[in-house]
Amino acid sequence: MTKKTKEQIAFQGELGAFSQMAIRQMFGDSAVARPFPTFEQAFRALAAGKVTGAMIPIENTLHGSVHENYDHVMNFGLPIVAETSVRIVHNLIALPGVRFSDVKRVYSHPVALNQCHDFFRQNPQVARVSHYDTAGSVKMLVDERPEGAAAIASALAAEQYGCHILKKSIEDDRQNFTRFFLLRPKANPETPKAIKSRPGSVRGWKTSLVFTTKNTPGALFRAMAAFALRDISLFKIESRPFKGRRWEYIFYLDFLGHVDDPVSQKALGHLREVADMVKVLGCYPRGD
Amino acid sequence: MTKKTKEQIAFQGELGAFSQMAIRQMFGDSAVARPFPTFEQAFRALAAGKVTGAMIPIENTLHGSVHENYDHVMNFGLPIVAETSVRIVHNLIALPGVRFSDVKRVYSHPVALNQCHDFFRQNPQVARVSHYDTAGSVKMLVDERPEGAAAIASALAAEQYGCHILKKSIEDDRQNFTRFFLLRPKANPETPKAIKSRPGSVRGWKTSLVFTTKNTPGALFRAMAAFALRDISLFKIESRPFKGRRWEYIFYLDFLGHVDDPVSQKALGHLREVADMVKVLGCYPRGD
Repeated sequence: MTKKTKEQIAFQGELGAFSQMAIRQMFGDSAVARPFPTFEQAFRALAAGKVTGAMIPIENTLHGSVHENYDHVMNFGLPIVAETSVRIVHNLIALPGVRFSDVKRVYSHPVALNQCHDFFRQNPQVARVSHYDTAGSVKMLVDERPEGAAAIASALAAEQYGCHILKKSIEDDRQNFTRFFLLRPKANPETPKAIKSRPGSVRGWKTSLVFTTKNTPGALFRAMAAFALRDISLFKIESRPFKGRRWEYIFYLDFLGHVDDPVSQKALGHLREVADMVKVLGCYPRGD
Repeated sequence: MTKKTKEQIAFQGELGAFSQMAIRQMFGDSAVARPFPTFEQAFRALAAGKVTGAMIPIENTLHGSVHENYDHVMNFGLPIVAETSVRIVHNLIALPGVRFSDVKRVYSHPVALNQCHDFFRQNPQVARVSHYDTAGSVKMLVDERPEGAAAIASALAAEQYGCHILKKSIEDDRQNFTRFFLLRPKANPETPKAIKSRPGSVRGWKTSLVFTTKNTPGALFRAMAAFALRDISLFKIESRPFKGRRWEYIFYLDFLGHVDDPVSQKALGHLREVADMVKVLGCYPRGD
């Protein structure tokens, strides 16, 4: 009997980060989450075969698309094979035995501190202290044991470092979600022959791509025609000035459909006629 | 003789922030920059007439659109009257008399620290310390005078707090720009009659708007037709899931043209036919 080797999934941040929550959400206990200090290092690890996948945040409902990670997906050429969304729930976390009345200082990443204004308004006795990472601030509580301190991070971070949650869900906005892509060295295998025999039959798949057009009136309109004329639903369209080339734009686009579906293939062929560059980043089952 | 009252322009952050650089870029010395701890407080100050304008970051070439500020622009109904872009140049800053060889710890916002990887790789003797704000980390040097400390922030922050720059431009990426909107209580006055007598004659103006469509195939294509069929150039198009309404999308769109131009008016009329909601956020001279 051979023991099945666990998945090794890279992410950026400390153990207990929201990216690790995305890994757990997708894999349960069947994957080991492997932390890296930077996104680039997580991509490098996957490209070098040191991990079997990488879980990468690509957009957030408050903060927009993470252009840096779109750049890495394009440059490393590692395909997207799955997506998932995590609700960003901030918790006030402390060492075992610490009560809320003991807390004088709260450590976290400045972005997380800024997402808990109501909590700080209602508790003027506690000071905010910036830290480089949300989960890292819980790790620091354990390593340095500062007096009267708590941290703001995910529930997973509390669990990871053996701390306890003093107050759950202290974030101002419950509509704060981060969408993650799972990347692999190879694309998802082609789906069953049904796709080719029954065009449009494969529901529940999304395809992500980037394309560039010249900055002329109507260029985007012609590109959109490739999808609209075939009744293909779009989930995302976003323009971004193309790095280093003034007045050229790169577009991110997600559509509903499997990339191997003949309808999708015709749309992509049409898009290639009117765009300067088209690159499919991946095809994956539609997440929740 | 009456002394002309200076403009009072609100921004989020500490004195010396990149938003203050945007104010200086636009106004030179003719405006007083007024710092507020949060974006919402800066918007509130403008809505309450406590300042004459607000300078608000709306997108960054690495980090994408600031959805929070799009929300504030929509909710407060304060019009955009100008735009400007600031290149994000990070400098290593210290108290007068401190030499580079003295520096053991570097304070800044984690995002800024992460944008100077090459510097930290080349200087392993210095440790990174997270702070809540870039300019705020220079202020802290002056207030607390920690030994062996430097900060990463704008050149303006060095000037503001009487510190000096040890190393200029230590950021990894020179293509890091933030685009700012200037908001006022009232929209720019209508431009000369020339617009109405010679449609399409007013060059160099941009109009920003948001619209929503039902999530049906081709909905966006029909919306884009309003501009494409009139040869109107687009600068930005971005979809975003509509907060709290699943499967509905809100779009940000910037086009080249004055809102009062009859061609623009026809395009907006056409857009209103095919979109559920259309809201013009402002019309302003095209920035550099």
